[in-house]
Amino acid sequence: MSSLEASSFYEGNSLIKRVALCMQYDGSSYSGWQRQKRELTVQYVLEKAISELDPYRPIKAVAAGRTDAGVHASGQVVHFDCSGHIPANRWASALNGRLPKTIRVRESVLCSNKWHACHSATYRRYRYTIYNGCKPNLFLTPWSWHRYRFRLDEKLMLQGLEELVGFYDFRAFQKAGSNRSHSWTSVQDVRLDRQGDLLFLEIQASGFLYGMVRLLVGQLVALGEHRLSLQTFLNRWKEKLREDIRDSAPAHGLCLVQVGYKEILFSKSAFLESFPKYSLLSNDPPKDPL
Amino acid sequence: MSSLEASSFYEGNSLIKRVALCMQYDGSSYSGWQRQKRELTVQYVLEKAISELDPYRPIKAVAAGRTDAGVHASGQVVHFDCSGHIPANRWASALNGRLPKTIRVRESVLCSNKWHACHSATYRRYRYTIYNGCKPNLFLTPWSWHRYRFRLDEKLMLQGLEELVGFYDFRAFQKAGSNRSHSWTSVQDVRLDRQGDLLFLEIQASGFLYGMVRLLVGQLVALGEHRLSLQTFLNRWKEKLREDIRDSAPAHGLCLVQVGYKEILFSKSAFLESFPKYSLLSNDPPKDPL
Repeated sequence: MSSLEASSFYEGNSLIKRVALCMQYDGSSYSGWQRQKRELTVQYVLEKAISELDPYRPIKAVAAGRTDAGVHASGQVVHFDCSGHIPANRWASALNGRLPKTIRVRESVLCSNKWHACHSATYRRYRYTIYNGCKPNLFLTPWSWHRYRFRLDEKLMLQGLEELVGFYDFRAFQKAGSNRSHSWTSVQDVRLDRQGDLLFLEIQASGFLYGMVRLLVGQLVALGEHRLSLQTFLNRWKEKLREDIRDSAPAHGLCLVQVGYKEILFSKSAFLESFPKYSLLSNDPPKDPL
Repeated sequence: MSSLEASSFYEGNSLIKRVALCMQYDGSSYSGWQRQKRELTVQYVLEKAISELDPYRPIKAVAAGRTDAGVHASGQVVHFDCSGHIPANRWASALNGRLPKTIRVRESVLCSNKWHACHSATYRRYRYTIYNGCKPNLFLTPWSWHRYRFRLDEKLMLQGLEELVGFYDFRAFQKAGSNRSHSWTSVQDVRLDRQGDLLFLEIQASGFLYGMVRLLVGQLVALGEHRLSLQTFLNRWKEKLREDIRDSAPAHGLCLVQVGYKEILFSKSAFLESFPKYSLLSNDPPKDPL
């Protein structure tokens, strides 16, 4: 039995195969991942492009993370079942020929029909970029939150962030409108690096609540601006004082950078980080004129 | 005599002062810096915004570097003379309130009426960014040239680039349509760094010929792809074989990053590099899930 047969199944007379995509999108062009009435979403645009190439059956694309309106993705993982004769590894370029430039498929691979982009995932990793410089910088605007009231105290922010690692109830950081049955999740890894005026905040968890990262970043920035004590931050979280947590960081600073699986389906060059870190530090000053 | 008086002069009854701007723009929105009939240019948009704030006299904005259509600037320097009562350091925020988001003024300062954005400049520094990875990456698209036929041989490219340092005739790298009286210029400094799949090429010169950097990058990429030998590259340049030099690298990979002066007018935070270097290297792989 070939690996294609092992990972395919029949639906009536058609051989159905499951294809997994590793993809990017510019969130500012879309009302999030998930299909909605009267809103342009990534899922709608992608399913439309797939249907044009494989018009024989209804298409449903399943994503690892349902990003909100305005949130970017550089490592979103999606699967869909198709009946056509396009080899799995050709779907990437076939789709890129039809998709707008604000959505790119980095790689497409054949996967088993038991593999599921969402349910098989062991983690999602998000990065939030804050530009903490005093001057405007249009090259950073689309991908970061320009926040400069004070120089952010990134050490205190990291202290708060590190407290979250573990399996906890994060109801304090869940926006209304979620359809989750509970608000527990496992935060696996956190990072916060400053590079000059730029702060890169990363959080990896088994799953995320609706609006979680943006509410959390809002609180961490309040910590970093000394408007909030570490004690109050922890208290709000542990006592689930959702009504005290008002500020949500803007969507355009957030990016889904990676989704983890037990088996890695994609090549290293597609799967590894594709959302650039920006650096404003030049190694040396330019030379004096001759 | 105050420093304001020292740097101002009278025109009829009006006290005229000269203001210098350090500014950025997204070149993809404009047909270059210089005013043209029937084309949207940065100079046109900026002069219009200045005139709205200072409507008493015709405004002419003078730039240090006349960037071509599609070329970005992160450190363009501009001056203009004005008669109004807006303090020089307030012009930045006043203009940012009227300019489109694709043009930002980082700082405005008062300068002497003998100081000239173009003539007082001792160097211009450009950066060309090449994305040499095999997968599409939409986050790099607006600011870099995605070129992947082979892995570029950056060592050979740097060898070619380093030959150019000095005062030479660069007619081989001058596009038709220039109004310069000669084609000699002094290349002061060159750099070429690879960071993963990204190449950052920098060149600093007293002045640049029309289309020079893009023609040069086209040749260097031919070197890096081993389509051109170092000997042929040097020969084309030294023998001024302009007709052999056909490929011009695309405009959107190029950015005017800095203009140098004997006296630095701007604060360090405005003047230092504001065009981000992108980095795709993560320091460590993400942690395994708990």
